[in-house]
Amino acid sequence: MIKVGIVGGTGYTGVELLRLLAQHPEARVEVITSRSEEGVKVADMYPNLRGHYDYLSFSVPDVQRLGACDVVFFATPHGVAHALAGELLATGTRVIDLSADFRLQDADEWAKWYGQPHGAPELLPEAVYGLPEVNREAIKSARLIAVPGCYPTATQLGLIPLLEAGLADTSRLIADCKSGVSGAGRGAKVGSLFCEAGESMMAYSVKGHRHLPEISQGLRRAAKGEVGLTFVPHLTPMIRGIHATLYAQVADRGVDLQKLFEERYANEPFVDVMPAGSHPETRSVRGANVCRIAVHRPQGGDLVVVLSVIDNLVKGASGQAIQNMNILFGLDERLGLSNVALLP
Amino acid sequence: MIKVGIVGGTGYTGVELLRLLAQHPEARVEVITSRSEEGVKVADMYPNLRGHYDYLSFSVPDVQRLGACDVVFFATPHGVAHALAGELLATGTRVIDLSADFRLQDADEWAKWYGQPHGAPELLPEAVYGLPEVNREAIKSARLIAVPGCYPTATQLGLIPLLEAGLADTSRLIADCKSGVSGAGRGAKVGSLFCEAGESMMAYSVKGHRHLPEISQGLRRAAKGEVGLTFVPHLTPMIRGIHATLYAQVADRGVDLQKLFEERYANEPFVDVMPAGSHPETRSVRGANVCRIAVHRPQGGDLVVVLSVIDNLVKGASGQAIQNMNILFGLDERLGLSNVALLP
Amino acid sequence: MIKVGIVGGTGYTGVELLRLLAQHPEARVEVITSRSEEGVKVADMYPNLRGHYDYLSFSVPDVQRLGACDVVFFATPHGVAHALAGELLATGTRVIDLSADFRLQDADEWAKWYGQPHGAPELLPEAVYGLPEVNREAIKSARLIAVPGCYPTATQLGLIPLLEAGLADTSRLIADCKSGVSGAGRGAKVGSLFCEAGESMMAYSVKGHRHLPEISQGLRRAAKGEVGLTFVPHLTPMIRGIHATLYAQVADRGVDLQKLFEERYANEPFVDVMPAGSHPETRSVRGANVCRIAVHRPQGGDLVVVLSVIDNLVKGASGQAIQNMNILFGLDERLGLSNVALLP
Amino acid sequence: MIKVGIVGGTGYTGVELLRLLAQHPEARVEVITSRSEEGVKVADMYPNLRGHYDYLSFSVPDVQRLGACDVVFFATPHGVAHALAGELLATGTRVIDLSADFRLQDADEWAKWYGQPHGAPELLPEAVYGLPEVNREAIKSARLIAVPGCYPTATQLGLIPLLEAGLADTSRLIADCKSGVSGAGRGAKVGSLFCEAGESMMAYSVKGHRHLPEISQGLRRAAKGEVGLTFVPHLTPMIRGIHATLYAQVADRGVDLQKLFEERYANEPFVDVMPAGSHPETRSVRGANVCRIAVHRPQGGDLVVVLSVIDNLVKGASGQAIQNMNILFGLDERLGLSNVALLP
Repeated sequence: MIKVGIVGGTGYTGVELLRLLAQHPEARVEVITSRSEEGVKVADMYPNLRGHYDYLSFSVPDVQRLGACDVVFFATPHGVAHALAGELLATGTRVIDLSADFRLQDADEWAKWYGQPHGAPELLPEAVYGLPEVNREAIKSARLIAVPGCYPTATQLGLIPLLEAGLADTSRLIADCKSGVSGAGRGAKVGSLFCEAGESMMAYSVKGHRHLPEISQGLRRAAKGEVGLTFVPHLTPMIRGIHATLYAQVADRGVDLQKLFEERYANEPFVDVMPAGSHPETRSVRGANVCRIAVHRPQGGDLVVVLSVIDNLVKGASGQAIQNMNILFGLDERLGLSNVALLP
Repeated sequence: MIKVGIVGGTGYTGVELLRLLAQHPEARVEVITSRSEEGVKVADMYPNLRGHYDYLSFSVPDVQRLGACDVVFFATPHGVAHALAGELLATGTRVIDLSADFRLQDADEWAKWYGQPHGAPELLPEAVYGLPEVNREAIKSARLIAVPGCYPTATQLGLIPLLEAGLADTSRLIADCKSGVSGAGRGAKVGSLFCEAGESMMAYSVKGHRHLPEISQGLRRAAKGEVGLTFVPHLTPMIRGIHATLYAQVADRGVDLQKLFEERYANEPFVDVMPAGSHPETRSVRGANVCRIAVHRPQGGDLVVVLSVIDNLVKGASGQAIQNMNILFGLDERLGLSNVALLP
Repeated sequence: MIKVGIVGGTGYTGVELLRLLAQHPEARVEVITSRSEEGVKVADMYPNLRGHYDYLSFSVPDVQRLGACDVVFFATPHGVAHALAGELLATGTRVIDLSADFRLQDADEWAKWYGQPHGAPELLPEAVYGLPEVNREAIKSARLIAVPGCYPTATQLGLIPLLEAGLADTSRLIADCKSGVSGAGRGAKVGSLFCEAGESMMAYSVKGHRHLPEISQGLRRAAKGEVGLTFVPHLTPMIRGIHATLYAQVADRGVDLQKLFEERYANEPFVDVMPAGSHPETRSVRGANVCRIAVHRPQGGDLVVVLSVIDNLVKGASGQAIQNMNILFGLDERLGLSNVALLP
Repeated sequence: MIKVGIVGGTGYTGVELLRLLAQHPEARVEVITSRSEEGVKVADMYPNLRGHYDYLSFSVPDVQRLGACDVVFFATPHGVAHALAGELLATGTRVIDLSADFRLQDADEWAKWYGQPHGAPELLPEAVYGLPEVNREAIKSARLIAVPGCYPTATQLGLIPLLEAGLADTSRLIADCKSGVSGAGRGAKVGSLFCEAGESMMAYSVKGHRHLPEISQGLRRAAKGEVGLTFVPHLTPMIRGIHATLYAQVADRGVDLQKLFEERYANEPFVDVMPAGSHPETRSVRGANVCRIAVHRPQGGDLVVVLSVIDNLVKGASGQAIQNMNILFGLDERLGLSNVALLP
């Protein structure tokens, strides 16, 4: 039984870890931390957990107790894991960070986008970007895993088959992405209120969103070269879900894109290439650790449109984190992640 | 492994049965019928099922194939099970009916509320009303089970502790119930459109709703006498969930209602009596086979307010049906039903 | 042209005043205050106002500038108007307070429910409760008007015909009310987030809500005696709207309730008694200053069910405030309030 | 007073015409037709209209009664106006068609996209495309006006400043558009159900949507040449609103795009170019006849991103139709269209 610690468990990725781990046969949450909710039972804060974690209360972060765990998940705002990850690694505990702290390999770029110096640049060389469909081998032996962001997961999975195959014009990629409101977290912000985000739609951060450098880094890896990406995120009136609509020019009109995608993901348990002509709905992955993808070439032109959907809290965060844990500990990658999406 | 058949699997209770049974370790769906979708793979109709039922397509109802199953669920409009249930019972198959066909023990009353004669009155004497918290023993040996409706489940579980204890004035019970739109089914009706049911709230069927006689029948059983019930259902702009707000006059101001409810449900795996002062949210049971209840006595008066929430598609339909199946086949009642509710 | 001032214009009742007054032919907003948004153009905060208030920015409250207005609306949290109202009245300006500060005539009761001493008890004797359907004459000559709360408006309009006629058992009234989330205001509270309030339903404040004493006070006035009221508010996943489901026992089964209600409101421009058997939807009043009511007597029993819907921000707040202003200044009561509800 | 007739008034564009015309000082609806609802009062079908159209019931279409009107709006499915428009024009009545029947100037292209022959090709030469920002002069003297579709309005208004100025690479335009569900109409379709379209997002008709040729036709006019457009519509869980996210390559990095857009629309009463850096929300135009636009050039690259929002039922349909009527009859273009958008 893997002993699990969670740092910062009061937000949406925290409760989602708890939801998924409650059904994981080989893991047990031993510690969950929160400074603001110290002493509160997790089930008192999240009544959906009643009956599943009667033994578990939030405690203040404590390196000794966390270090006694086999693995510690960070479900914290950016900046928090920088300070604590090194200490935990020193105790032999593995760290799976759901925040942005170790996603960018370049500390200066991190500092530029997050407006503060990187707090642990010495750990960056060993941090593994936890996208199993790209980095499975490296994950197996990692000590520190940076779980990809939600937009980056949906976008990379949708574009890398084209880039790895060298088919797309990498200078003009577009990711028009739509996210549910839970992507903004559980913080009490006016913009996330029901009466502000409901019954409306808007783009945001068109000038530049923090997930842009993360996506670009992943696409460069796949393309083995520079990429030009325009990324426009939108806020959509739904709780969960990301719908990435991806545009790439593909010169060769003869290539069978459907086959390309199906073969790329043939052995991936959590990527579903849908039949040609499909339009994946975000609800088809609600609560499930799945990315569903459909490839289109409208009017037979040279612009390819890839549709890629995930649940931002599952394949875009907590589910993918557990998938990483399974790989790390040599378990069946699907353990605890076989939930069917909730539809309707 | 229990061989399962499903009649009428294209609606919301059908797909919910498939979702839940996909994770049931002792059951396998062998047959699922639909006249309109014959030959269509279930995963083509419901993409959330992709990867879980690759072998399964809708077929036309066939007594022989269904009769080869250990149990057949009816997820059909009312009237359909009347004709077919007897034939299946004759083959030795058990029948669990999610429709209203066998819920009322009085065929005349059924005819009055459903506007057509009862098609199988001879089966009524042996039909067991599948509310495990009341009828567990009878369910164990049943051949034909009538799964309670969604409103009746939430309302009965909220009121029976008071009635069984003889505490409430049974002549003036009120059930003000709020339902998500999935309770209206997947039929293409104008009133269920996103633009009609969204961003709005309304009462309906105040004159008399078909669940009224079913609730009254259950309350009479608990009260061992006649009851006067006013039942006002409302349509609420959410997909899943029922919130029953129940009003009963309780003369004895000394009784500890919290304790009464806790003791009544102490051994019930799927009824959660929340701490005094709680306000259960429907999302705390979304996707889960749980009824959460809180008991209030505002301003210390003699009017008791009970709040009772369920997911209408789970504890109010398909989950409860599987709970019945588990009891019927001597399995752990919780098998396949341990999902944590999806929150947020 | 009436010169209008608004104190505390950044919340939802503030922007709703601006929306409605933009179309009022006899009023012009001269001053709008906000400490936190000083200097910000109202249209920069609320882009729906672009093109309508190019001249208007938030300023810090200033008695002199406000006192130069003919009327000042308070759209503030409770407690704020206590301090300022008297000063403005002294300048000859009329005050229409949308907050709870002058709704309860008993300062002690106010103190009990709002947890602080009443700040201007000397003004209470002259404060007029601004429910035109009850107090029209008093409003005409008022200096200080307390606009009713949203729940109290829907509930009183639904019950007073019964109470004024002496038909109901006043000891056992029930108001089961459902509100959209905008009733909780624009404050950044976790409970009002899209991901908390969306796709879910819950009761709240069952122990006692601040609108309870206000409703009771109004019902006592109508009944000319004590009343026993159980009031259970619920949060509903919609932005605007209140649906009050009201229960009262009426002994006399012979009385024509439909006629009673129609006659009571025959001359009321903003109360619509719908045909017998109707189920008013909250969307039928979205954005409009209307209360729609339907009266039911299910199964011909002695329990009457009244359905009453309003838009909490219009007839439940800003629209009603303007209706009061129209009466106060001798204008046609309907001026600026003839908008048709937005449906769908 | 302009005498107005409406053919096919039971759908969402029909009720929206009624809502807006109720407040129009110079127009009065004399006739409204519907075969299925003959004899039903419009206020019985749409309770938001109660008190505004007590005199008006649906009647069967009758050329004589419609011909007695000064103008007839068609709010019908495609194909219906073909047959009737000519007859009405012959009586001297003007026709404003909200359907797609006269939007494409090429009858063959119409036949290809709508799957049936064009029923009135002889009228096409005189049909004026009713986008006032492009065709105001022609509208003034038109007999037959084709009101643009919702997607085409948002997309054209967002792109034509670039195209008219010859700035964009017209071979690679992308319109990634998100629509509320009311765009699908009031028809009882499974895909438009609350439980199907709610809490989810999807693209649709990626292969080719009927608005594609209409948009292309308008862009060609602006660009004075061929255009290559990829148009991907998405269904979004909100009732009203279209958000068009438009991508165009602009070689000249020196041009001041903000100024270009502001000047292009300087005299347009219903196009609002927002300040640089803005992110328009669809709710900022809810219920209002406005298109709000913001222009971005992320990271200073050569890809311009234009954000354009409208209410699909107002500026995307019924409001624009009334704007056309105002122009046609020499009235102030803003008459009856000065509503402030409903926010929140």
